[in-house]
Amino acid sequence: MLLERIQPDLKLAAALFDSLSRATRVGRGIVRDSYGAGEQAGHDIMRAAAARLGLEVSVDDLGNLMMTLAGRNRLAPRIIIGSHLDSVPQGGNYDGAAGVVAGLCALSALKQAGTEIECDITVMGIRAEESAWFDIAYIGSGGAFGLLDPACLSIPRSDNSRSLEATLIERGFDPQAIRERRPLLDASRIRAYLELHIEQGPTLVAQQLPAAVVTGIRGCKRFRNARCIGRYGHSGAVNRPQRHDAVAATVALLHHLETIWLQQEQAGADLVITSGELYTDPAMHGPSKIAGETHFVIDVRSVSDATMNAVAAEARQAAALIGEAYRVTFDLGSTSDSPPAVMDDRLRASLRGQLERPFEMPSGAGHDAAVFAKMGIPTGMIFVRNEHGSHNPDEAMTLEDFAVATRAMIGLLRNFPPL
Amino acid sequence: MLLERIQPDLKLAAALFDSLSRATRVGRGIVRDSYGAGEQAGHDIMRAAAARLGLEVSVDDLGNLMMTLAGRNRLAPRIIIGSHLDSVPQGGNYDGAAGVVAGLCALSALKQAGTEIECDITVMGIRAEESAWFDIAYIGSGGAFGLLDPACLSIPRSDNSRSLEATLIERGFDPQAIRERRPLLDASRIRAYLELHIEQGPTLVAQQLPAAVVTGIRGCKRFRNARCIGRYGHSGAVNRPQRHDAVAATVALLHHLETIWLQQEQAGADLVITSGELYTDPAMHGPSKIAGETHFVIDVRSVSDATMNAVAAEARQAAALIGEAYRVTFDLGSTSDSPPAVMDDRLRASLRGQLERPFEMPSGAGHDAAVFAKMGIPTGMIFVRNEHGSHNPDEAMTLEDFAVATRAMIGLLRNFPPL
Repeated sequence: MLLERIQPDLKLAAALFDSLSRATRVGRGIVRDSYGAGEQAGHDIMRAAAARLGLEVSVDDLGNLMMTLAGRNRLAPRIIIGSHLDSVPQGGNYDGAAGVVAGLCALSALKQAGTEIECDITVMGIRAEESAWFDIAYIGSGGAFGLLDPACLSIPRSDNSRSLEATLIERGFDPQAIRERRPLLDASRIRAYLELHIEQGPTLVAQQLPAAVVTGIRGCKRFRNARCIGRYGHSGAVNRPQRHDAVAATVALLHHLETIWLQQEQAGADLVITSGELYTDPAMHGPSKIAGETHFVIDVRSVSDATMNAVAAEARQAAALIGEAYRVTFDLGSTSDSPPAVMDDRLRASLRGQLERPFEMPSGAGHDAAVFAKMGIPTGMIFVRNEHGSHNPDEAMTLEDFAVATRAMIGLLRNFPPL
Repeated sequence: MLLERIQPDLKLAAALFDSLSRATRVGRGIVRDSYGAGEQAGHDIMRAAAARLGLEVSVDDLGNLMMTLAGRNRLAPRIIIGSHLDSVPQGGNYDGAAGVVAGLCALSALKQAGTEIECDITVMGIRAEESAWFDIAYIGSGGAFGLLDPACLSIPRSDNSRSLEATLIERGFDPQAIRERRPLLDASRIRAYLELHIEQGPTLVAQQLPAAVVTGIRGCKRFRNARCIGRYGHSGAVNRPQRHDAVAATVALLHHLETIWLQQEQAGADLVITSGELYTDPAMHGPSKIAGETHFVIDVRSVSDATMNAVAAEARQAAALIGEAYRVTFDLGSTSDSPPAVMDDRLRASLRGQLERPFEMPSGAGHDAAVFAKMGIPTGMIFVRNEHGSHNPDEAMTLEDFAVATRAMIGLLRNFPPL
């Protein structure tokens, strides 16, 4: 079957990105705080666009926005096209939102072309994917499948310390759904999940390609609140054997983890290890003081659970040994974990077939797609080239590249493989 | 000659420490900010006490407080007993001030005992020894000998950004003295300089000794404002070869410096290396971000200039190599340097003779005594046992230990060796 290509509605895309930028830019960057005013502004913009397109609109108990184009057989399992509408503090305009905009542009184009579709297609504006605000990722998608530990309701928001529970209630949503682990979506009624997202690394820029099909999503094992407790002392007056130097011990631990990383890399394992936050206490530290405390993050990612578990175990063991050697105490705390996820082979093949220059790559960052894949739902992802990485105000995606990826998604929807 | 022991005026000491604590405690700690209200309060308290004791009082162009007991021969070179009256932010009550209090208690005791003294003895309340406020140490003592680089007048105060020059003028002092490198003291007219100071390390506590004679003072070479500039990126989406990870590079540099330290230590060198401040940018960092910037201090101390110079050269060389390997740029900045100083052998011997259980040790921290020694003035120092180190609110010196050290100083004054 040869279909004439249907172009996505780029006028709509441009208008939506512009509205999002105007409504949620604070200083240089974008602030769409999870369950806050910024994220809500994103939802309001998408909801209004969906209404103009004549889609059926509903909001679930956790605030996820469902915008549905009715298919021929309304009883058939539906396809969900989703992504999140929140951002990190001082993030960019495209991380997350591009996937929701792509869904709406695809449905708009299908509708304008009068294309008959088999089953319902729902564009899902997902809540609270970023862990920057509540120290837990995938609240919207995980909550929609009843996957969240109810204890997460007491997690404070990083900026205002209000609990997730209080925040949900303030927004008019229902924390009971999380407390009861009540699913809001039935996985068996979902035919497939698709997500378009900007690439958050430099691969597509280096490859000079507009888009890529995603093979799988790295999981993440993160020591979010690791600490080293030593003892403050005068930098000149305490010799090495008497020191309890929290910085020296932390440096030794992080250096050891880099050694482990290099070993794993040489053994062919997929792995990245990052400490992106590391600080002595500004109220206590000083140029002529031995540091008595450090705070840091260890973020471990891999497509293999076994690799992440091995690194985490190594980190705990090394922390104990190094702590003893440096006369300090490490408190690595618990890890927050997102499992790795593989994308559906048939959807990958179909998406490859839609690209002029097919290219595949793993996703280093986590996505809501991982939650759907974990639920056994056939899941496909497509990346759009993006400069300067993500989670910063300099994200740069062109509408041309966005069109290439969205067109591939439209092609897939019109010629959906049997799953 | 056997002299009956003269006890220091401990009632005066207790009253002065109490006044200092009441006047300059802010929250838990002491704040006697250099050329600020806190330091001035210390000077006011000492000045009033000196007036009550009938000492001659004057203040020099840089605010150093001179409190003199006239000797028999007023034309003979005088003895100065000094220390500083400023503190670090949230410091303790004894670092610095104990030396000035000791001087006044000694003179009070000598006066009460009617002891005739050969030459003038001046207790000097020295300004701005700590580098916490102006990023330069020994402003008072260095300035008194015309040793300061006039460029230091533009250094901003760390808390309010006002220049040293503006701050001096506000307090009614004369920055011209620094600009002209005009000496306020004539080194050839000073017979000796004596300083009592709390020990800032754990040695005397471990030795169970109340006091020690100081052999020499470690110099300090400090990279105060070192930075590493990389590039922010997503922790999962950027693989190792594409990273510009400022934390990883900084960890590699600090780890390398520890290796150098261990080598020097094994070769018998006196050395300590400390990074007491180390931080990613709280406005930009994040748990799922590769850090694009770090700020840190490298503080190198030794009794040997050659050792410090070797470590600083090694640090610069390693920063260049590691910067290249990690695709980041280190900017270590310039160093602020204090030279090492040796104490006078004859004064050391006399002080040892005054102690019931003679004990000697080097000083790891810098002191105004180093400036006087550098000027060729015979210099002696005595340490008092102190728990919990210094530069923190938990400094703990007992009046009993203070009395042992001050009594030794009185004994030395009454039986001064020919120099």
